[in-house]
Formats: sequence, structure tokens, C-alpha cells
Amino acid sequence: MKTEREPIDFYFDFLSMYGYFASLRIEELAARHGRTVRWHSMLLGVSVMKTMGLKPLLETPLKGDYVIHDSERYTRRHGLQLHRKVTDPMMDPRAAARGFYWLRRNRPGQESSFARIAFDQYWRQAFDLSASQTVAQIGPALGVDELIFLEGIESETARNDLREAVAASLARGVFGAPFFIVDGEPFWGSDRLDMLDQWLASGGW
Amino acid sequence: MKTEREPIDFYFDFLSMYGYFASLRIEELAARHGRTVRWHSMLLGVSVMKTMGLKPLLETPLKGDYVIHDSERYTRRHGLQLHRKVTDPMMDPRAAARGFYWLRRNRPGQESSFARIAFDQYWRQAFDLSASQTVAQIGPALGVDELIFLEGIESETARNDLREAVAASLARGVFGAPFFIVDGEPFWGSDRLDMLDQWLASGGW
Repeated sequence: MKTEREPIDFYFDFLSMYGYFASLRIEELAARHGRTVRWHSMLLGVSVMKTMGLKPLLETPLKGDYVIHDSERYTRRHGLQLHRKVTDPMMDPRAAARGFYWLRRNRPGQESSFARIAFDQYWRQAFDLSASQTVAQIGPALGVDELIFLEGIESETARNDLREAVAASLARGVFGAPFFIVDGEPFWGSDRLDMLDQWLASGGW
Repeated sequence: MKTEREPIDFYFDFLSMYGYFASLRIEELAARHGRTVRWHSMLLGVSVMKTMGLKPLLETPLKGDYVIHDSERYTRRHGLQLHRKVTDPMMDPRAAARGFYWLRRNRPGQESSFARIAFDQYWRQAFDLSASQTVAQIGPALGVDELIFLEGIESETARNDLREAVAASLARGVFGAPFFIVDGEPFWGSDRLDMLDQWLASGGW
């Protein structure tokens, strides 16, 4: 018998504005098809760029300009008010990613709530979440003591979990963000959410 | 007064399967919005890759595998029967591109019919159109004598027209295929055709 209702694996990087856009839609989309979402924090810069040998998107001639234009168009279209621009200096995303994996291990189920708060703080409110101390301040909103969370973010276990998660994402062929896998089927890019939607509705092609 | 009903500029490379997919849909889409399509043959490998400093798509780790999977999924979904695989050796696209620009100059209006035939021969029928002689054989279907067309494909004027067209596409920020510009608004990728459709329907965001 075919296994039904596998969750949708959703891979993102806090640095990716398109990942942020997708994070705002994926839960609603999944729920419409009776699916849940398994969130995966990854690091495009640290691992994928190296693996693929590509330079950062905004430093790619022509494509960089397009991405700036396209992301601004997306925010207008969806009525988003972002204080961060895609061209603003980027944070170091590792503390936030470690916070995500500490929660997955120690407060399972809370990590996606954390991801949504961190995305919102980074992109809409333009916070800098590079420092573990800043990330730890999200803890109380999730019922996690700030100092315990800080210790977790800095822990060797969280570092290992992040390393393993990034390696696992590469092993599954994830090379960009957002990236979705459902029933073994990969979809790359926020502009493929509609295709994912149609795939789930139709049962695949 | 705003200029209405500007044509949609459609940039493609005969080598791009996604460009081929888009070529099958763009005229119908444009017609629904009372627009015409201005076709532009370009050379991703010769110019854009060099300008952007990127390696060929299929040679990019992880992404290459995704593209193979995704293009096969697209052909299933749209019921296409292609004899060429995206992994098959590529032709040299320059003769076909020169044929396109010779027609634009000498039989204006015929170049898009030529492009559709060349796309069909390359992707669906898996012809190799590297040789000017092979491309010239498309001439009679367009009412153009094969030998006159061959001379045109080999002419200095066609070479210059192609060079200028590629330079002009780069100057407009075109970095991939398919690429569309309508009313100054750029859209990249066959998965943005729906967005282009919505843009035209809504008057933009």
C-alpha cells in the first residue's frame, strides 16, 4: 500500500528572501492538501555555493539586477512591508540555524515557530541575528528560557546537528532555497509553489 | 498618453529546452491579452555564460540533476513526445540563429515561423541543425529558396545581425532563456509564464 500524506520537506536559508516568501505560504498550501510541513534550516553560502561552485546571486552579473527587481516586485504584489532590502549587508545565519536545530532536538515542534519569528525579524523588521545572544532572545516567545536557549545555540550538539542537516540536504540534492520535496518529488524556487500545489492536487504527472 | 499594446519580447536559445517549452505557449498567451510577440534568438553559451561567469547548467552539481528531472516532468505533464533528451550532445546553434536574423532582415515576419520549425526539429525530432546546409532546408517551407537561404545563413550580414542582437539582449539585462520583457518588465524562466500572464491581466503590481 502506498504511504499517504507524507509531510512536505521545506528547505530554507534565513538569508534567502525567496525562502522567506515561501515560508509565508507553505503551511497554508500544505494544509489544503492535508499535509504537514517539515522545516529544514540550511546554509546556502557555507555549503551549497561551495559544492556547486557558483558565486553569490547578487554578485552574478545581470542575474543580480534581475533578482533585485523581481524581489521588489514580489513584495509589492503581496503587499509586504519589508524593512530589509535584498541588497543590504547580510547577517551570519549560523546562530539562527543552530537555534533551529537545538529546538528540533529539545523542543520538537517549536522549530518551525522559531523559523517564522526569525524570518520575520530578519526580513520584515531588519534585525541582525548574527549574534547568538540576539537569537536567544526569541526563546521566551516559545516558552524557552533565554539563557538555556543561548547555551543551546552555542552547544557542540547544535553545531553537529546543523552540520549533519546541511550534509543531509546536499545528499538529497537540495541546491537552493526555497526547495521542497514531497513524495520524493523535488521543487526548486518560490515560483514553483504553484506547481507544487498542482502536483498535490492532481496526484502527480 | 501611455503606449498600449507593446509587443512581448521573447528571448530564446535553440539549445534551451525551457526556451522550447515557452515557445509552445507564448503566442497563445500573448494573443489572449491582445499582444503580439517579438522573437529574439540569442546564444547563451557564446555570450551570457561568459558575461555571467557561470558554467553550463548540466555541469553544475546538484542543479544539473534537478534540471534533468524537471524537464522530464514537464514533458510528461504537457504530453510532449520529444526524441531529444536534455542530456544529449548539443548542436552548434549559430547557423540556426543566423538563419533567424537573415529572415528577420529579408523576410520580416517569417523569423518566428522559422524559430518554431527549428525548435520542433531540434527538440521533438532530434535533428542536428549545426550545419548551415541543414538549416537551409527549412527555407522552402517558408517560401524561401534553399540556396538563397544558405547564402544568407553564411553571409556577413547575418553574422553581424546575430552579434548585434546578442549584444542588445545583454544590454537589456537578458541573462537566461526563456526571458520575456513586456512594457519594460522582465520575466525569466518558463515557470514565470503564469506570472507574466497575471501581470498582463492585472495591469501590473
